[in-house]
This record gives sequence, C-alpha cells and structure tokens, in this order.
Amino acid sequence: MFGSNRRRLFIVSLLFGIAAPLCAVPFGVAVKAAAPDGKAPKVEFSEEGKLKQPVGFRKWVYIGTPLTPNDLNNGEAPFPEFHSVYMDPDSFALYEQTGKYPDGTVLVKELIAVGDREATSGKGYFMGDFIGLEVSIKDKQRFADEPGNWAYFSFGHKYPLKTEVAKNLTASCNKCHQDNANEFVFDKYYPVLRAAAPKTK
Amino acid sequence: MFGSNRRRLFIVSLLFGIAAPLCAVPFGVAVKAAAPDGKAPKVEFSEEGKLKQPVGFRKWVYIGTPLTPNDLNNGEAPFPEFHSVYMDPDSFALYEQTGKYPDGTVLVKELIAVGDREATSGKGYFMGDFIGLEVSIKDKQRFADEPGNWAYFSFGHKYPLKTEVAKNLTASCNKCHQDNANEFVFDKYYPVLRAAAPKTK
Repeated sequence: MFGSNRRRLFIVSLLFGIAAPLCAVPFGVAVKAAAPDGKAPKVEFSEEGKLKQPVGFRKWVYIGTPLTPNDLNNGEAPFPEFHSVYMDPDSFALYEQTGKYPDGTVLVKELIAVGDREATSGKGYFMGDFIGLEVSIKDKQRFADEPGNWAYFSFGHKYPLKTEVAKNLTASCNKCHQDNANEFVFDKYYPVLRAAAPKTK
Repeated sequence: MFGSNRRRLFIVSLLFGIAAPLCAVPFGVAVKAAAPDGKAPKVEFSEEGKLKQPVGFRKWVYIGTPLTPNDLNNGEAPFPEFHSVYMDPDSFALYEQTGKYPDGTVLVKELIAVGDREATSGKGYFMGDFIGLEVSIKDKQRFADEPGNWAYFSFGHKYPLKTEVAKNLTASCNKCHQDNANEFVFDKYYPVLRAAAPKTK
C-alpha cells in the first residue's frame, strides 16, 4: 500500500519520531510514581559528602510524633520538643510489603517547640514553631562502615538551620538506635509504622 | 513526497491512531497528579448520606499533632489523646497557592492513646495505639446549611470504630470551630499549614 520498503521505513521512523517525544514526559512521571526503585534523589549530598538540607519532606509519609517537653527534661530536652517524623514514600511502600527498612530509607525528624498549653479542646501541648531538623539514612554503599548502614545528621535545634552537615559520630546517635530500637528505628513510638507492617511480621 | 493528499491524510490518521493509545494512560496519570479538580472521591458517602470511614488518609499531608492527655483533663479529654491531623493532598496543593481551604477540603483527625511516658530520648509522651477517628469536610453543595459549609463526623474514640456515621449536630463541633478557629480550622496549632500558606496571606 505504501509503494516501497523505503517509504515504509520512512513512515515508521516518522511515527516513532512523533510518538516518542509526546510520551517521554508523561511516561517518565508514571514510571517514577508507580515503580520506585529506591534510587531517586530523595536527598542530596555535597561533593564533600555532606548532606544538604532535605526539601519536600512535609509531603512524605508521616509516621508519628513523640513529645519530650523541655519542662519535663530539666529545661533542655535532647530533642526539643515535638518530633514529627516522616519516611520517604518509596521506602514506606516497600516497608508495607516487607516490614523491613529498605536500603535508601530516609527518615526526617522535624522538631517543633511547644506553643500553647491550653485550648478549647482541653489542657495539653500544642505545636508552636519549627525549631530543628534531623535526618537518618540507611545506605549500604555510602555508609558501609556504620552499624546497620544507618547514618544520622542534625541540622540544628534552632533556626536558622544549617544548610549542609556531615554525619554525626557513630557513638552520638547510631549506638543508641542500635541498642534500643528495632532495626535502628523506634517503631514502638510510631503507630503508623506498626500498623503498616505486614501482619506476618 | 507522499504522492497524494489522500495518502497524507492516511498517514496523519495512522500517526494519531498509534500515538493516542500510547500516551493515554501516562497522560491520564500526569494530569491527575498535576491538576487536581477537587472532585476525586477522597471520601465516600452511603446512599443515606452517611460518611463511610475514610481510607488511605495516612498517606495524605500531615499538618500537626495537638496532645490533650487524659491525665491533664480529669481523666477524660474531649479528644483523647494525641490528635494527628491530615489534609487531602489536592486541597493542600490549593491551600499552598491561596492560603484558603478550597471547597472539597477533607481533614482527618486520628486519635492515638498516650503510651510510654519515658524513653531514651527523655521524659514525655509517646504514641501508643490508635483509638479514634474524626473527620471534617467543607462542601458547599452537600453541607449548604452548615456555617462555612463545614460538617464534622466522629467514628468514635474506641476501637472498633463505626464504619459509617451521620454528621454531628452543628452545635456539637461547628459552633466551636466557627467561634474559635481561623476559617473553621485551628491552624494556630498546625505549623505545617502556617508554613505552607502564601506569604502574602
């Protein structure tokens, strides 16, 4: 119908030439959303290996909020005061399947000062302002020498936060997580994690 | 080059015939994610107009956690005890642009018992088990007679929760939100909302 093989070849090339650019962007979006491979740049590091302040984590999966008010900790809690904790969505999706923290897991702990102590809903603790940010990352290549391959970072407990930081000493954070948490994560205090783990865990 | 107008028409038709199905699904995904219309079924109602228990909200945008422990409220806080609050992502995206709660906004308040009172991170309050679920919805068509078009629902403060519930009386919830909150939402206690609102608000 197209007269010659040469013409047929030209038409096929044309079809792909038009179809490919049309689909490239949406396919890229769909693949990224539907098939996480754990390799997306959830966080970024500087050339010197420092962790840059993460962005966008307030839209990650929230897993829980411990509260250690300063006034219950001699005026200076180790982590003041509300600790809202988020997990990157790709790793959370894998956690739902396995109950394990996959390589590449990023947890962000945002620290928030206690604001009001009473509201129309009763007496208690109400969130005030953001004051700090901490991050833990499981990465068997980058943190091959850390127990469990987890590294811990603190951007400070007072604004303005640091823009990039080196990992904390193993003894500063990792040791406590290794000794007291479940696979380095205090899931005991994160009901969302406990509920999301497979029942067979 | 293609010999005739008829053949050219055929080729163009063929191009679209192949390109359209190739792109339909990924374009659909991209549009849904990028241009929320506020009409997606974030929650469902029964034929009698009762709200069915929402699902999937633990992956919505977390906005904050007030805490009203029972032991600071004569043993029975109105909302025991941690209240983790989520906003549907489409409405949050619009809120980021406008600082307003768009029609169709759904807020879910998940209630969590206080568990431990001390951990390696210090003294305080740590989340125990899920115990309750409440929802507020702004819908000018469905709740045309409610102040601000907001309706409030409670699935209970003890598991097992109710599977579907009618809206609460206006005096039970709406009145307090109308009188004490900002546009019916206690954003004072939700730092994520305050930070997400446009600076010009």
